[in-house]
Amino acid sequence: MKIATLSIGDEVAFGEIVDTNAPFIASRLYDIGLKVSQHLAVGDVEGDIIEAIRTLAATSEAVIATGGLGPTIDDITARAAAKATDRRLILNETALLHLKEFLTKRGRNIDPANEKQALLPSKSSLIPNPTGTACGFHFQFNGCSFIFLPGVPKEMARMVEESVIPLLRERNPKGKIIRVKVLKVFGVSEAKLDTLLAGVTGPGSPVTVAFQVDFPQILVKLRAEGDNETHARAALDAVYRKSREILHRHIFAEDNETMDSVVAALFNEKGLTLSLAESCSGGLVAKRITDIPGSSAYFLEGAVTYSNAAKMRRLGVSPQILDEKGAVSSEVVMAMARGMRKLSGSDIALAVTGVAGPDGGTTEKPVGTVFIALATHSFCQAKKYRFSGNRAEIRTITSFMALDWLRRYLLTHNTC
Amino acid sequence: MKIATLSIGDEVAFGEIVDTNAPFIASRLYDIGLKVSQHLAVGDVEGDIIEAIRTLAATSEAVIATGGLGPTIDDITARAAAKATDRRLILNETALLHLKEFLTKRGRNIDPANEKQALLPSKSSLIPNPTGTACGFHFQFNGCSFIFLPGVPKEMARMVEESVIPLLRERNPKGKIIRVKVLKVFGVSEAKLDTLLAGVTGPGSPVTVAFQVDFPQILVKLRAEGDNETHARAALDAVYRKSREILHRHIFAEDNETMDSVVAALFNEKGLTLSLAESCSGGLVAKRITDIPGSSAYFLEGAVTYSNAAKMRRLGVSPQILDEKGAVSSEVVMAMARGMRKLSGSDIALAVTGVAGPDGGTTEKPVGTVFIALATHSFCQAKKYRFSGNRAEIRTITSFMALDWLRRYLLTHNTC
Repeated sequence: MKIATLSIGDEVAFGEIVDTNAPFIASRLYDIGLKVSQHLAVGDVEGDIIEAIRTLAATSEAVIATGGLGPTIDDITARAAAKATDRRLILNETALLHLKEFLTKRGRNIDPANEKQALLPSKSSLIPNPTGTACGFHFQFNGCSFIFLPGVPKEMARMVEESVIPLLRERNPKGKIIRVKVLKVFGVSEAKLDTLLAGVTGPGSPVTVAFQVDFPQILVKLRAEGDNETHARAALDAVYRKSREILHRHIFAEDNETMDSVVAALFNEKGLTLSLAESCSGGLVAKRITDIPGSSAYFLEGAVTYSNAAKMRRLGVSPQILDEKGAVSSEVVMAMARGMRKLSGSDIALAVTGVAGPDGGTTEKPVGTVFIALATHSFCQAKKYRFSGNRAEIRTITSFMALDWLRRYLLTHNTC
Repeated sequence: MKIATLSIGDEVAFGEIVDTNAPFIASRLYDIGLKVSQHLAVGDVEGDIIEAIRTLAATSEAVIATGGLGPTIDDITARAAAKATDRRLILNETALLHLKEFLTKRGRNIDPANEKQALLPSKSSLIPNPTGTACGFHFQFNGCSFIFLPGVPKEMARMVEESVIPLLRERNPKGKIIRVKVLKVFGVSEAKLDTLLAGVTGPGSPVTVAFQVDFPQILVKLRAEGDNETHARAALDAVYRKSREILHRHIFAEDNETMDSVVAALFNEKGLTLSLAESCSGGLVAKRITDIPGSSAYFLEGAVTYSNAAKMRRLGVSPQILDEKGAVSSEVVMAMARGMRKLSGSDIALAVTGVAGPDGGTTEKPVGTVFIALATHSFCQAKKYRFSGNRAEIRTITSFMALDWLRRYLLTHNTC
């Protein structure tokens, strides 16, 4: 099935926003074995939309369009779609009822601008929008299935899952079944991964292995194609098991998990508590820990001790060590971790110090030099890193490394 | 001039990455008075690229294509462009020389894969790439100017500025001059802004005012069109001055400034120091403060006192207040700010407490209830907010509100 996406809107055409709808649709369709072969974007210009619809009808079997279904006068997709396909614009009673109910529930009145959203091309079927005012619609034209969705990403995404994918499956019943598994890896280069995983799929295997760098992590995407669910699933599972065995603890998360959510789950599972002392990461590790709901169960306290004075006053780092070894040293980072653990009474304390740049680097400790320490009541260790990149990148990879250390520690310890 | 952009690459077509090249080109052209009316994306499929080039040649006067000029076998844009326009692929000596010099400078040898990058369609002109191996090229076909650029965003961006824009100006000498000014506003709704700024441009004004929501800020974009630089600049300045007068302190930044950079500049200017005590924002405010290089000059210390125990132990909040008023209260947030200021000795201390959700809300203090306090040695005030949104949105808007308070305070105070 030859599929195209069509994004409609001045904000997309003029580059005011980056269009994430088209890639979302393409990647979701790819997951079910359908490839988008063409993407087109036009502004809110009637002639351009009409031309786009007619051109795509001639070259595609399915077109998924987003945008231009809102209440304001510049939203003209429904009208243009009707004109392009010689349909009339008629009031859809179901769409109108949805609109009224949706607005009433939120204590708002329907106004004429909203009512326009119920005017749809004749001979089209409604696509429900559970989270917004603009219903979608679909129709056949010149042998091509046209599907129109609102441009609001959240609304569009839900409608793709609930209506568009089932609709396309119906139209394309012989499509291959695709099953995808994503392994998230940190601390191994793409080249190394390539070598390590070279043997997991044989020639003619229905499974492909692809890498996607999402700094600082790498996503390993396993994608299995099969005539049915059982075949696809079995082929995927075999490669998945082999890959897991090879990559082992380098895999920190799978599918929708993140480094943050995995660390949170481990803290909850082990019943241990955490405190943080941050210098160069400036609160970023604490921010990521507290991004996860329920983190108050294990996260007791964080300190952003940016100045030497704060390191001494708050964490009890001795002026002598600071003076002799410098704020960026294994001695200081260990003193920070030990000090924080004692103060907070947490099972684990993690500390970070380093040079995030762009200034402050020396020959001995250039920008990107970072020390991380982990302390428990019986253990304290520091590790030294040399990261490259700009300030934001150094801070991001530092926070990743800190969380990964917590993850590895928690995997192997049930008590401290 | 009818202009189209064309993005070439499987990673774009299949939705593996979000295409930022097309919006970048559209927005840069918009700035010089040219509108992109159509955008097309196709995968690395020869037939699809050829079809795209022929279709666009029929409907556009200029096409700017990106992607597929790399050294690997799946990079086939030059070959497809040659086939689509009945050209031969010939070795371009200048491109080859550039390649050799570029690689030699970096201590690398040219290999056959790279050499392929010097094979360009006949009768085309080179576009230099100062920062990568892949030169661009341009030619005329069926009355349409085709420009091909590499897909690496940094390389593409520089080539657009240095070569594409001058080239298009030459082709379109009567193009209007466009000047743009962006005002960043926080704390005023889009509807309110619309009303406030209704009178800043009269009928027939060469200046347009547009709003773009970039949660939680709103960008007010002033765009002036003129026959020459002086006219455009004068028209823009007049509207800019009126808008500034009306919006006044609601404007927190202009053009490339951000809330974080503006607050940083004010701290540097006033020579005052800061400390932070965060509960529900969990380090996010500290993270934003320390995102800016040089923040160690004024940021002394932050505490993420997530638990009640930490609020008492670290900041000296009395158990009685915590018990009577609860951790989310104006009394507690003021005690946190006062405590932090005393401990750190900073001129200003800012404290945050609240319910970020999704759990922890009560009828009296639902999710989104946030208290922020600002303390100096002689002053302490708390403000209560009720934000809506998910956990991430509530935390984001909380950090924005906290930084905006610092901004407003610093604007009106030279000492504490």
